[in-house]
Amino acid sequence: MTKSKCIPLRGVIPPIITPLLDKDRLDVEGLKNLIEHLIGGGVHGLFLLGTTGEGPSLSGKLKYEMVSEACKIIANRVPVLVGITDTAYVESIGLAQFAAKCGADAVVLAPPYYFPTGQPELLEYLKHLVPQLPLPLYLYNMPSMTKVDIGVDTLRKAAEIDGIVGFKDSSGNMIRFHEYITAMRDMPEFSLLVGPEELLGESVLFGGFGGVAGGANIYPQLFVSMYNAAASGNVEEMKHHQIEIFRLRRMYFYGNHSSTFIKGVKCALNLMGVCSDFMAEPFHSFRQPEREKVAAILTEMNLLPAKLY
Amino acid sequence: MTKSKCIPLRGVIPPIITPLLDKDRLDVEGLKNLIEHLIGGGVHGLFLLGTTGEGPSLSGKLKYEMVSEACKIIANRVPVLVGITDTAYVESIGLAQFAAKCGADAVVLAPPYYFPTGQPELLEYLKHLVPQLPLPLYLYNMPSMTKVDIGVDTLRKAAEIDGIVGFKDSSGNMIRFHEYITAMRDMPEFSLLVGPEELLGESVLFGGFGGVAGGANIYPQLFVSMYNAAASGNVEEMKHHQIEIFRLRRMYFYGNHSSTFIKGVKCALNLMGVCSDFMAEPFHSFRQPEREKVAAILTEMNLLPAKLY
Amino acid sequence: MTKSKCIPLRGVIPPIITPLLDKDRLDVEGLKNLIEHLIGGGVHGLFLLGTTGEGPSLSGKLKYEMVSEACKIIANRVPVLVGITDTAYVESIGLAQFAAKCGADAVVLAPPYYFPTGQPELLEYLKHLVPQLPLPLYLYNMPSMTKVDIGVDTLRKAAEIDGIVGFKDSSGNMIRFHEYITAMRDMPEFSLLVGPEELLGESVLFGGFGGVAGGANIYPQLFVSMYNAAASGNVEEMKHHQIEIFRLRRMYFYGNHSSTFIKGVKCALNLMGVCSDFMAEPFHSFRQPEREKVAAILTEMNLLPAKLY
Amino acid sequence: MTKSKCIPLRGVIPPIITPLLDKDRLDVEGLKNLIEHLIGGGVHGLFLLGTTGEGPSLSGKLKYEMVSEACKIIANRVPVLVGITDTAYVESIGLAQFAAKCGADAVVLAPPYYFPTGQPELLEYLKHLVPQLPLPLYLYNMPSMTKVDIGVDTLRKAAEIDGIVGFKDSSGNMIRFHEYITAMRDMPEFSLLVGPEELLGESVLFGGFGGVAGGANIYPQLFVSMYNAAASGNVEEMKHHQIEIFRLRRMYFYGNHSSTFIKGVKCALNLMGVCSDFMAEPFHSFRQPEREKVAAILTEMNLLPAKLY
Repeated sequence: MTKSKCIPLRGVIPPIITPLLDKDRLDVEGLKNLIEHLIGGGVHGLFLLGTTGEGPSLSGKLKYEMVSEACKIIANRVPVLVGITDTAYVESIGLAQFAAKCGADAVVLAPPYYFPTGQPELLEYLKHLVPQLPLPLYLYNMPSMTKVDIGVDTLRKAAEIDGIVGFKDSSGNMIRFHEYITAMRDMPEFSLLVGPEELLGESVLFGGFGGVAGGANIYPQLFVSMYNAAASGNVEEMKHHQIEIFRLRRMYFYGNHSSTFIKGVKCALNLMGVCSDFMAEPFHSFRQPEREKVAAILTEMNLLPAKLY
Repeated sequence: MTKSKCIPLRGVIPPIITPLLDKDRLDVEGLKNLIEHLIGGGVHGLFLLGTTGEGPSLSGKLKYEMVSEACKIIANRVPVLVGITDTAYVESIGLAQFAAKCGADAVVLAPPYYFPTGQPELLEYLKHLVPQLPLPLYLYNMPSMTKVDIGVDTLRKAAEIDGIVGFKDSSGNMIRFHEYITAMRDMPEFSLLVGPEELLGESVLFGGFGGVAGGANIYPQLFVSMYNAAASGNVEEMKHHQIEIFRLRRMYFYGNHSSTFIKGVKCALNLMGVCSDFMAEPFHSFRQPEREKVAAILTEMNLLPAKLY
Repeated sequence: MTKSKCIPLRGVIPPIITPLLDKDRLDVEGLKNLIEHLIGGGVHGLFLLGTTGEGPSLSGKLKYEMVSEACKIIANRVPVLVGITDTAYVESIGLAQFAAKCGADAVVLAPPYYFPTGQPELLEYLKHLVPQLPLPLYLYNMPSMTKVDIGVDTLRKAAEIDGIVGFKDSSGNMIRFHEYITAMRDMPEFSLLVGPEELLGESVLFGGFGGVAGGANIYPQLFVSMYNAAASGNVEEMKHHQIEIFRLRRMYFYGNHSSTFIKGVKCALNLMGVCSDFMAEPFHSFRQPEREKVAAILTEMNLLPAKLY
Repeated sequence: MTKSKCIPLRGVIPPIITPLLDKDRLDVEGLKNLIEHLIGGGVHGLFLLGTTGEGPSLSGKLKYEMVSEACKIIANRVPVLVGITDTAYVESIGLAQFAAKCGADAVVLAPPYYFPTGQPELLEYLKHLVPQLPLPLYLYNMPSMTKVDIGVDTLRKAAEIDGIVGFKDSSGNMIRFHEYITAMRDMPEFSLLVGPEELLGESVLFGGFGGVAGGANIYPQLFVSMYNAAASGNVEEMKHHQIEIFRLRRMYFYGNHSSTFIKGVKCALNLMGVCSDFMAEPFHSFRQPEREKVAAILTEMNLLPAKLY
């Protein structure tokens, strides 16, 4: 466990998308470009195989390949977190062990997502699982996908399990995030990270450690700047960045489904020449009309054709 | 494809539980007992690795073992359906191919369950996937777990995809089931099966083909009798069986979570000497107080210590 | 309390629509036509100011007028039930007292629908309210509107409150309806009525007392026939009626909102020459394209221009 | 319309609770104390008959009395907003007219809350209703109670209706609130207010106009201070107030239901000697155990027995 690198983790840790050439084939070139784009943009860590990374949609083989390739490319320049969320307990452990071998720094786990888990069952599950993991764990709240919304009491108890070092909340519920901050005030080494990029500023301002902003795949500098402004309490700068964050996100909403965010990010990266925009099943990438809208937004924001790195 | 055996499928096809000795170890002896108990009870088919079978909670290795062992034990005495639902497309195909090699008769697929899928995306996904499957497919509606409720129009269009031969609805929405019946009236070879055991009688009475009753793991004769009564329009008998079905189900509700049904079934089978009641993570089996209540119900219904087979 | 007339209530009790000439003006002529149409169609009672009657959308003054006019027209030919559901306790009592004076036979009450009520609070509320009512009460479960789904235990306890004589379940959850039947088996005088017309047949077949079928506004004979077939266990006839019920309901779904059912019923009655189709705010009646579709269905089912009574 | 007083409205406008002596009787003395307590605490306006004011639970007569008495006591010292939300269109207009006569400055309206309204229907409804109102209107988003979540596009279009001058969002969705701010940036006279007191600080910091903080009933100075700190971008002070706001809110959660917030506020005010804590049906006030917990929190925060004004 490389304690200095990832505990406590602070800053912007993008959940990187998984560039694909086909249903079951990694776009390794694209992955290299993406990682350089992000590290060049100043991010403080990288999170592989999250929701934005389409982790659950990838075959076991492809997940392993992604971890192995990404760790090689990153080469210890920033901390690497690997998503090991799985409905099957044994598969989570297997992936964690592989991630450790590849040199990852921590793992990230949301509750198993087929059956809804109760809060006490979730705690029991963590007590069984965490001791078997070779890396520190960031617990991940993602109620829209996992059907369980990790309560403040559950977080408090989970934080006392040896090996759990942080928490990422993607509920989008800012009132709750303040509750988590309140509950964890006496454990100042426990990283509280926020998921939605729209809440990065205010969550850091009030005591959060940073965020796992999906849009940072496209424009890492913007989110790093927001993090810095919030961490130093520079309100005027925050307001300016918040406006930019809301300009960027317009490209995520061409469709009704939760996947449209990932489609937007992949489409932007493809237009910027970074990587393929192929989507894992059951989704398909944006088609021409949406593509043109994304291009227009990128152009308007000077993200196209400007080279960002 | 053994057309005569599973198309159209009619009757009671229990979603068999997966007997476990430990987190990742199959209770093969228990599986044998269970299969004999069910075939002896007159069931019309067996469905492996469904929700009741804790399919999503099992490792890839364990799923393959379950399919292989169960097919050997069943030895073509009744049609075998194998659940291949997975969030990763490639894994579903792999399991279907393995099931075909083991001699299974059909596969069962619910939508990928991490990301919510829209109806058009679901249809596209099926159009991509089904041609790659070596066995006929039963589509499976399980909205509480998959976050998508398969609409009547989607079913109608899916039924026209070559290779999709039936549909299992576990929504518990009986109004919708009547809509499915109405929509499929002109495709009389397409099997419409109902999930919840409480609705087996009326769904068959109004045109359904049968049911995937979880409680049939415990008391197959009861559900086979209900199916027969409903199929022949014997209302008086149906009423009698419905009362028994509601006596039986009292053992499924000692807890707040969706898993309590599986716990109840496994507990009953363990008390009856059939197999282990070990639950896959993140759940645990019923503890002593619930166990005693289940035993009391079994005794009251003459299911304990009576040998049922 | 006219015990012989409405306790226990059995059969088809349509929730009659409220014919309006304008936002706050009753279509008294239309109301007369409608009541004659329904009584002529053989219904077993009439329910005023329910959901289908747009009760909550009407001003206090208009509600009182509707009760007064309807009671005069019905003139004791069938039992009259009056919806008194209100978010304000005092208003419910006032309306019940007025209904009693007008000669109504019972009142119907769903939980207050602004704040969600817990089950224990609902019971307390009923214990306070019911003794102040001059008429017997039918409790009404309408979770999609009231935000509380009346549990089996709550029903059991409510049934023991003196003055509560029956229950109407509009949850659409047929599994639950079987649970209510099971729980109330030892109180054979307590009327269990089902809301959704699609479930009338099977609920009566398994022990229900009848239904509050909205479509009976249009075609009372169909639902009365279904009730009779189900009450006498005539399965073949039930199947035939069920097909007709599903042909009729096609006219309720031209729009996305829960109000489209009422719009469809009012439109059909208007086309049949019975009454105005004006909708209370915030809704508007079907426009020409939907109107033509409704007309086509009515014609196909020989409900237009045929005189039904 | 007293334009200078309430357009655009900025600051803290507490949704005042309705002090009751009994189910249908106003605690006029308590109301006087409460209003003095709030005006003395520096609030920028007062909102009568909102959710916290139990508006929907009160009889028509009691609502009128509350408006009349409160306007007399307030005597134009601060702007008065009156909630006119009702499921019956005519009743909303009647109450607005009465409020105008009593000297209120504006009305507040959430969508009718029995039937869920679609966004286009809601706009049509507003276009019908607003021209008939004698006072400017604040639109009120309260999706947990009204079943409709007012979208950004709907707000934008509603803001163009003459007479709608502001918006209060009680969704608790801070991402959405940023979207509202973004969408309304070009209408700088349109008041955007936030409901949940936990979000007052950050919403004002990023461009909101103020908040309708329920807890300000108890401790108006705290929320006024937070508003001032946020409006002037004083982050250090905001952090301090946020901690206090989260200490205060602990008293709202002794129960499972949405009403527990109102119970907590009424209980605190009663302990502080301000007014009665009687709750309108279907709720009851906190009992002794909860009362003691509330007292402990008040004492800890120096709100008891300290005189606050």
